[in-house]
Amino acid sequence: MSNERINAFSDGVFAILITIMVLELKTPSGPSLSALMDLKFVFFTYFVSFITIAIYWNNHHHIFYLLERVSGRILWWNMALLFFTSFLPFSTAWLSQYPAEQMPEILYGLNCLLVDIAFNILAIGVYKQQGLFNRMRDARWFWKAVWSIGILMISLAICLVFSIPFIVIAGVIASLLPWAVPDRQIEKGVNQ
Amino acid sequence: MSNERINAFSDGVFAILITIMVLELKTPSGPSLSALMDLKFVFFTYFVSFITIAIYWNNHHHIFYLLERVSGRILWWNMALLFFTSFLPFSTAWLSQYPAEQMPEILYGLNCLLVDIAFNILAIGVYKQQGLFNRMRDARWFWKAVWSIGILMISLAICLVFSIPFIVIAGVIASLLPWAVPDRQIEKGVNQ
Amino acid sequence: MSNERINAFSDGVFAILITIMVLELKTPSGPSLSALMDLKFVFFTYFVSFITIAIYWNNHHHIFYLLERVSGRILWWNMALLFFTSFLPFSTAWLSQYPAEQMPEILYGLNCLLVDIAFNILAIGVYKQQGLFNRMRDARWFWKAVWSIGILMISLAICLVFSIPFIVIAGVIASLLPWAVPDRQIEKGVNQ
Amino acid sequence: MSNERINAFSDGVFAILITIMVLELKTPSGPSLSALMDLKFVFFTYFVSFITIAIYWNNHHHIFYLLERVSGRILWWNMALLFFTSFLPFSTAWLSQYPAEQMPEILYGLNCLLVDIAFNILAIGVYKQQGLFNRMRDARWFWKAVWSIGILMISLAICLVFSIPFIVIAGVIASLLPWAVPDRQIEKGVNQ
Repeated sequence: MSNERINAFSDGVFAILITIMVLELKTPSGPSLSALMDLKFVFFTYFVSFITIAIYWNNHHHIFYLLERVSGRILWWNMALLFFTSFLPFSTAWLSQYPAEQMPEILYGLNCLLVDIAFNILAIGVYKQQGLFNRMRDARWFWKAVWSIGILMISLAICLVFSIPFIVIAGVIASLLPWAVPDRQIEKGVNQ
Repeated sequence: MSNERINAFSDGVFAILITIMVLELKTPSGPSLSALMDLKFVFFTYFVSFITIAIYWNNHHHIFYLLERVSGRILWWNMALLFFTSFLPFSTAWLSQYPAEQMPEILYGLNCLLVDIAFNILAIGVYKQQGLFNRMRDARWFWKAVWSIGILMISLAICLVFSIPFIVIAGVIASLLPWAVPDRQIEKGVNQ
Repeated sequence: MSNERINAFSDGVFAILITIMVLELKTPSGPSLSALMDLKFVFFTYFVSFITIAIYWNNHHHIFYLLERVSGRILWWNMALLFFTSFLPFSTAWLSQYPAEQMPEILYGLNCLLVDIAFNILAIGVYKQQGLFNRMRDARWFWKAVWSIGILMISLAICLVFSIPFIVIAGVIASLLPWAVPDRQIEKGVNQ
Repeated sequence: MSNERINAFSDGVFAILITIMVLELKTPSGPSLSALMDLKFVFFTYFVSFITIAIYWNNHHHIFYLLERVSGRILWWNMALLFFTSFLPFSTAWLSQYPAEQMPEILYGLNCLLVDIAFNILAIGVYKQQGLFNRMRDARWFWKAVWSIGILMISLAICLVFSIPFIVIAGVIASLLPWAVPDRQIEKGVNQ
């Protein structure tokens, strides 16, 4: 399968996901400022999920940029990434409805963790196929993956045991930090 | 009509269908694990439909890869495939609401059967136009189509007569197996 | 503006419209066949609207195929076409909820009429710019436009005066007939 | 990141936004003309938002047309533009539900203001990178931005202090006027 069409399909899914989340935003119950303010946590979770999808789309593009041919394996890992990402509107909606509740936080964190794991397996698959696997070390990919997967797991564990409110959403935000700007080292190494 | 634009349109429809199904997932009735678990069959049917659309998208790309010019006939068979596929969110939603009920299972199975038949007629049309029809035999296309259409029909018949729960969804999963990895024989034959 | 990006945008809008109509299909009220059959008119209107959008997408592609540069005027007529088309899910939903009622039929017919008029003005604009305006006569475009706009107007008038049920939806189907297969005369004339 | 893929993603988001707003249009409460007319303000706000997104899409294409390479900074300003634009269906729905109420008008105006500001910062970023910043003066960009941002701010202030109904939506329409037709001066200057 050519690189182009899987890119177009993935871009389509990311673009739809980032946009349909807004359909979950129910209009406030009245025309007052306080009715709008009741939704402040809804806006906040929507914002976090928007940023999450934006960052994954950006990094997704980055790793597929170097891909020449899509194998069946990469295709299915990409489908796994899209599948878990497509659950984000659902877990976002549940969390925004019950802020600071344990189960919705855990589902949201688990969802982000699965997206993260699928993304890293996909990236390893792509770079291995392109013979760029050892460049991932130069780009400190390993430490970034350890950070984001680790911080998500720790925040999920804390939430499960101590049930501290908002701990998971804080973990999600922290996990995104190293991915906000895609590392251009791998790309540069190739273009040299 | 050029190959490119029908691909873009079909990709768009597949990408939207695979994504909007998640909008059918209503948030659980409460913030508890048991409220989430009430939706387990909803998740399962959603997962099966996601895989179904992913597999058809993958195979759709595979047969259109070799197409040079889109005739009016192929255009309308493609529209038929998209039309039946676009009903999947509806039949999925009904089935997930009434698991193990006879009618929703039959509608779901019938929907998958129509998608399968439209897909195979489309494939025959494309390969015939490209003069690759006899390669379909080498790729054991005939047996794969007999398997998937046959297993769907048998499971529908069993469901109609004996009303065994979950028999149709099992049939749908079984019917997808030979299509999970598109046969690269036809493609290879051309590239040689 | 380049031809490509307006095509991509229009394809996107057509693909989304043809797909989101299925979201209007509410699941039947129960798991029985009769509950499903209650929706038969809903399915029928959905089917008519699906075919309508498919035909306009097909013809839209056909006229834009020959376009080299998009002027501001063509851009805005294209926007008008997309705007009226984007109302189809709304007017379809209203009609399917109140079959055989006068007002929903009139709105649906009016919507199709506006789509048809915008499409024909857009086509004239494109062919004039490309210096192919007199080829439209060879392709009997004029008679096709008179037929489709005329039949819609007549059925709307009959519905307004005599309020015969289903007259408008019959008019819509009749109006689509000459457009089902895009005339390849204009294209051929250019490729010679 | 290449120009192409950010264009495809942005086009996707704009196309989805302009289309899903129609999903907010609930079908009238009955099959009568008066039930339809109850929605007249809903149609009007939908129309204004459709035009707004169409104009921004058009101008967005115009500034990205000249862009060669997408820096991280431009990527994130583009994401900011898409983020604020993706709120339009929400603020449109609230305003259309409570016409002539102060808070929904202010939210709608604020949303349009944020879209406008993000768009102008993005444009400055793109033209600066391409060394075309001083051409923006020739194109009277500065005065257009001052007009649109100024008129939005003034109408918001009037609405806040005097709470005149419909003042903000009038401001939004006025703010769009200079952007309805993208200035081709910058493009022409480059193509010379």
